[in-house]
Amino acid sequence: MSTFKAKVFVTLKPSILDPQGRTVERALSHLDHGNVGGVRVGKYIELTLSGSRADVEAQLKDITENVLSNPVMEDARWEISEQQGEELVGA
Amino acid sequence: MSTFKAKVFVTLKPSILDPQGRTVERALSHLDHGNVGGVRVGKYIELTLSGSRADVEAQLKDITENVLSNPVMEDARWEISEQQGEELVGA
Repeated sequence: MSTFKAKVFVTLKPSILDPQGRTVERALSHLDHGNVGGVRVGKYIELTLSGSRADVEAQLKDITENVLSNPVMEDARWEISEQQGEELVGA
Repeated sequence: MSTFKAKVFVTLKPSILDPQGRTVERALSHLDHGNVGGVRVGKYIELTLSGSRADVEAQLKDITENVLSNPVMEDARWEISEQQGEELVGA
């Protein structure tokens, strides 16, 4: 039984309009950052899970796909690392 | 002149209460994910910048600290990579 730290990244699918990103982009352009484009605003979620690595990975995949993101409109990927341990990357 | 892809991660400082994270945690606990804790919900922003690497790095630091995050309540870090190039990490 170990403790794992997970990071989940949720972004709108590229084909979905991102009004929040457009607003940030326009604000930056007014602030003399006209060379900035393609702004997309997503979510970044940190969580801690305890259990065996195999269980935690399966559970995190389930949580990411079914609770933290909407698969119709959003892409999600996750990273998991054992506390003070190596790192694994998933999608 | 190159094009760089930047990723910015904004999280609430550890001492700041995160009601959205608490709500997610409670929801997960009701969904039989009682081994999940420490949920913190932050922002993940992708942007594209064009210019020289030194200019873009300075600009991204400025944007991250002054536009995309509130330094009183939030921590922010960023990563930048040249399109199809190597990766740099900053904080």
